[in-house]
Amino acid sequence: MVLLRRGIATMASLKKASKVVCIGRNYADHIAELNSARPKQPFFFLKPPSSILLPGDGPVIQPKGVNLHYEVELALVIGKQIKNLDESDEKTAFDSVESYALSIDMTARNVQNEAKKKGLPWDISKGFDTFLPLSRIIEKSAIPDPHNIELYLTVNNEVHQNDSTELMLFRIPRILGDISKVMTLEAGDIVLTGTPKGVGPVVPGDVMRAGIKVGGKELEEARIEVA
Amino acid sequence: MVLLRRGIATMASLKKASKVVCIGRNYADHIAELNSARPKQPFFFLKPPSSILLPGDGPVIQPKGVNLHYEVELALVIGKQIKNLDESDEKTAFDSVESYALSIDMTARNVQNEAKKKGLPWDISKGFDTFLPLSRIIEKSAIPDPHNIELYLTVNNEVHQNDSTELMLFRIPRILGDISKVMTLEAGDIVLTGTPKGVGPVVPGDVMRAGIKVGGKELEEARIEVA
Ligand SMILES: [Mg+2]
Ligand SMILES: [Mg+2]
Ligand SMILES: [Mg+2]
Repeated sequence: MVLLRRGIATMASLKKASKVVCIGRNYADHIAELNSARPKQPFFFLKPPSSILLPGDGPVIQPKGVNLHYEVELALVIGKQIKNLDESDEKTAFDSVESYALSIDMTARNVQNEAKKKGLPWDISKGFDTFLPLSRIIEKSAIPDPHNIELYLTVNNEVHQNDSTELMLFRIPRILGDISKVMTLEAGDIVLTGTPKGVGPVVPGDVMRAGIKVGGKELEEARIEVA
Repeated sequence: MVLLRRGIATMASLKKASKVVCIGRNYADHIAELNSARPKQPFFFLKPPSSILLPGDGPVIQPKGVNLHYEVELALVIGKQIKNLDESDEKTAFDSVESYALSIDMTARNVQNEAKKKGLPWDISKGFDTFLPLSRIIEKSAIPDPHNIELYLTVNNEVHQNDSTELMLFRIPRILGDISKVMTLEAGDIVLTGTPKGVGPVVPGDVMRAGIKVGGKELEEARIEVA
């Protein structure tokens, strides 16, 4: 799979992911704010590629009766197949990451809470069309250490999320190890690495802006602005 | 998207599905056997395309510590995009189905039960590699009425599942309507329509055979035989 840099072909290739895998509860303060239990190992779920919203694709659509929450997350774009990866093999883990993107894991929180209570799947609450805004592709060289960048998200210019990825409970080699022992990751697949604290609701008309800072400097290509 | 009939290209195209959507609890007797609640509306979850096992691909792999269950299901192969379908528009619903396949929704039952108890996602329990054996493509004309065929599954030549699709609680137009109001279905996507009663465990060495009878006659292309 060839990902052209920053061109229209790159963005289109993101929508052709064979799957999007998302880690839940990977930042301690976010676990506390949702009164969730701290996982002993990473757990994960899928979002359908049909939920991807690329820059310029328009707004996030709020489904009727849905309490819509944002979760800003660092996304990994996989560059080669990963199967049964040993988490101690950090070199293979990082070599398998082709590039990054910023993402917002939009969540129908009331639907998810209902599913949790009833022991039902999360997929509907996570999978509506437009529920996965992505930034442009971020070249790997722009993020020398993915565990040492700042993610932020504002709603109507008010900062709601702003934390370092050094707060991840499970780091990228562990995440890729655990996922790839269950499901083979293919080139082009997208992995969301979890959200820091500060998640909350948005309503139509709100403007979300999200981005990444590396060493305090904003990454232009990581910017998301979505209504 | 062009699906070549019965050729190698057809089978390969199944693995390129952008998603696999599965209906849960769509047969009353299966709901009873798992002591589950009867849903007021169809609910659904995703299996990753990486879990697809095509004829000749080898055995289903039982992950360590997993109680592996089979669920035989009629699968729909989508032929054109479906978005916000009104379930009363049966013509569009059936026109959107390009062909069929038989499928076995392999499930790590102990992992799923644990997830249900903790309110966690089902995706791991449903998503291991090899957890979605498929038959060859079944041409649409071979199944004049998808709500009036027999699905069966045997383990070591003993019949465990054998019921008519007329027992579906939610029929195909309703299923496609409900899914497509959440996530757009794309050409090539696969939809599993739920399993009748009789699910149970298999262990390595067991041989599963599954098939479809139309008017009492076996469909050759629907046969699955997998260890
Ligand atoms: Mg694809
Ligand atoms: Mg998330
Ligand atoms: Mg099933």
